[in-house]
Amino acid sequence: MTKLSVRHLLGIKNLNENDIHTILDTATQFKDVINRPIKKVPSLRDITIANVFFENSTRTRLSFELAEKRLSADVVNFSASGSSVKKGETLLDTVNNILAMKVDMIVMRHSSPGAPHYLSTRIPANVVNAGDGTHEHPTQALLDAFSMREKLGDLTGKKIAIIGDITHSRVALSNIFCLQKLGAEVMVCGPSTLIPKHLDELGVKISHNVKEALQWCDVANVLRIQLERQQIKYFPSLREYSLYYGINKAMLDDLNKEIVLMHPGPINRGVELSSDAADSSHSIILNQVENGVAVRMAVLYLLAQQ
Amino acid sequence: MTKLSVRHLLGIKNLNENDIHTILDTATQFKDVINRPIKKVPSLRDITIANVFFENSTRTRLSFELAEKRLSADVVNFSASGSSVKKGETLLDTVNNILAMKVDMIVMRHSSPGAPHYLSTRIPANVVNAGDGTHEHPTQALLDAFSMREKLGDLTGKKIAIIGDITHSRVALSNIFCLQKLGAEVMVCGPSTLIPKHLDELGVKISHNVKEALQWCDVANVLRIQLERQQIKYFPSLREYSLYYGINKAMLDDLNKEIVLMHPGPINRGVELSSDAADSSHSIILNQVENGVAVRMAVLYLLAQQ
Amino acid sequence: MTKLSVRHLLGIKNLNENDIHTILDTATQFKDVINRPIKKVPSLRDITIANVFFENSTRTRLSFELAEKRLSADVVNFSASGSSVKKGETLLDTVNNILAMKVDMIVMRHSSPGAPHYLSTRIPANVVNAGDGTHEHPTQALLDAFSMREKLGDLTGKKIAIIGDITHSRVALSNIFCLQKLGAEVMVCGPSTLIPKHLDELGVKISHNVKEALQWCDVANVLRIQLERQQIKYFPSLREYSLYYGINKAMLDDLNKEIVLMHPGPINRGVELSSDAADSSHSIILNQVENGVAVRMAVLYLLAQQ
Repeated sequence: MTKLSVRHLLGIKNLNENDIHTILDTATQFKDVINRPIKKVPSLRDITIANVFFENSTRTRLSFELAEKRLSADVVNFSASGSSVKKGETLLDTVNNILAMKVDMIVMRHSSPGAPHYLSTRIPANVVNAGDGTHEHPTQALLDAFSMREKLGDLTGKKIAIIGDITHSRVALSNIFCLQKLGAEVMVCGPSTLIPKHLDELGVKISHNVKEALQWCDVANVLRIQLERQQIKYFPSLREYSLYYGINKAMLDDLNKEIVLMHPGPINRGVELSSDAADSSHSIILNQVENGVAVRMAVLYLLAQQ
Repeated sequence: MTKLSVRHLLGIKNLNENDIHTILDTATQFKDVINRPIKKVPSLRDITIANVFFENSTRTRLSFELAEKRLSADVVNFSASGSSVKKGETLLDTVNNILAMKVDMIVMRHSSPGAPHYLSTRIPANVVNAGDGTHEHPTQALLDAFSMREKLGDLTGKKIAIIGDITHSRVALSNIFCLQKLGAEVMVCGPSTLIPKHLDELGVKISHNVKEALQWCDVANVLRIQLERQQIKYFPSLREYSLYYGINKAMLDDLNKEIVLMHPGPINRGVELSSDAADSSHSIILNQVENGVAVRMAVLYLLAQQ
Repeated sequence: MTKLSVRHLLGIKNLNENDIHTILDTATQFKDVINRPIKKVPSLRDITIANVFFENSTRTRLSFELAEKRLSADVVNFSASGSSVKKGETLLDTVNNILAMKVDMIVMRHSSPGAPHYLSTRIPANVVNAGDGTHEHPTQALLDAFSMREKLGDLTGKKIAIIGDITHSRVALSNIFCLQKLGAEVMVCGPSTLIPKHLDELGVKISHNVKEALQWCDVANVLRIQLERQQIKYFPSLREYSLYYGINKAMLDDLNKEIVLMHPGPINRGVELSSDAADSSHSIILNQVENGVAVRMAVLYLLAQQ
């Protein structure tokens, strides 16, 4: 009942519906913990966790680190810059070296899709994927689902629009898997250059009209325009994107319905979201960040029981 | 009595005389703690502090980190390099994200004067300014005052000369405010190109003759020549500066009086101070560093009570 | 008996045979500790250790950090990048500043041979050399000796070949000193351009034929080709090196004897070692990494008793 069907959190694709509910229910309990004056529990006191980030990250690394510390785990941080990775060592050798120092769990971010999956079949430690290229970012999808469930209750039949750059986003794919497993309906919305061709095979609706998407949905999960990833020439300019797909508060107010606004951060204010939208009462963006620590505590705690 | 009149330590300008005495008296007690075999107290056991450094720093960051650990706080470090700041996120969004993870206090260094003040009016956490551009560096001024008081007793009527690059120093301004509130007389001394025009309005004496300043003062607080900040063309060369404003041991010995030599570090040996002066019995430079941890413990402890 | 004859671990050259046995015997006990479910002991609970790395390192820094945490020490990390070192501060000033914050022990890596020795005569704290240029890397030699002793028992009369780039390796020199003090016979093997001229004065055999070396030895300690250190023009190319000095599994199997394969990491797979050799049953490479934490715990623990 409170066990997961997996030893690693590689992606939402590998989880079943029960796993997701177990994680979200456990996270509810940890959210209570971190809102008490004493925010720590001794659950992972004898566990050592290495945060192995081959790609820069601030918020995700910090969120995992706080989750680990609040579970009383020992934490070591490893980043690729200035490391033996530059000296030509293989990924597996690097990780095996860290594990030989009696590390029990690896939280890893890597630019190559599938890197955590590759490792998970070759090492004894639990692996948590903290983002692998444009592939999956499972803890983000879980904290998004947690935040929606907290706001709307059971997600069965709820309508979620994911708006923005779907092609370059690992958040989008993990969200689609997670929401569908929880019984929600998913629409993706963005310019056709930013929506991958095969996406309709996943059973999602596709729209190129942001007003239509907002009209349809209970939740608008607006993604960041990932300037740093784009190599496509015919992508709309930032100004065009903002003009045709940017969301402001008036657009949300004019809907005359409850709508929940989400964003995985960091926000490009004035591009995908106006400041008045991001800071409006529709927005649960900072709740997502808070819930991220609780959800990551739940994932680490449950994997440590395996 | 043991409460501060402020919720944040933004600058010495915002403190009253009582606040300063409360911090220095509390620091005296913490100095006892860190000189015991067991250097830790459980005072901030349930507090999480983020050190948010948008500008590089070694000694200040390390001093805060040790102060936090000796108060048993949970500590997370965030530096701008490799962070979402580079992805175009606003300062307020970055800090709000950190706070949403249940961080109670922010220690921040930023290159923009006023950045901590701006934040303090918009976030619920306590903010400690660890240096904002060329503006203030209040914990440095407090540890300087603590070190002087430890050596000389009550600072009322004591004469303090601040010697060097006043224009580009955040230490100078904080020191002037702090020393005047404690009843000391302050002189600044340096080449006219390195002393801001309006400074006499603050009620400080101004001298361009280092021997005159040394003759006058009980304490010489010698500032670092901040090579990395200077863009002024007509600044004296390092050789000229050293020739006209550099201080050596013979100059101090020849005064035939007690004089206390201070420096906030890092020292450019052979520029503003000769090695024999820095290492002489006049110098309390390493005491300043030791006292820095105790003073920062006091600041964090007192703000946590607010 | 359980005391060392030294206050610092600067190099193996400064240790006597008893010191080495004391460290290895103590490490055996700590290896038991880190293989228990509860991997921590409170031995250094009131000790603060600073890891001061003026040169980048991943595995050594991580190994020391885990050793320190498992001894319950307080740990602060200092790296040269972004530090006051860049502002022209002297090494001694930098370290004295760290010590003034009540740090008890310094673990340091520096690019200059002799830097830890220089410091050790000028500061009150214990100094552990974590690598000084191409000079010594004593904890690596100790963990290598520990790993050999664990596999082969008493090293008296055992034959150890150190194969590869001897000139640019700090591991080689420390290994030679350590193994000779433990009564082993040492051969170095590599192209003549990578073996320093004076080495025969140390009483080691020299070979330029890797098959001869493998035939002779009980243990082959294969060093990394340090591409990043080489400035010698007539060095063999990587392809030539691999052809004449690279070791593969067939070469080891064909010996028809027990042989132990070691490497200090990170491995250049396909250069000095083939993958099938590195992963063969001859290899104890990952045991070396595991033993590194236990040996470093022993060193820190014993120095703290001095």
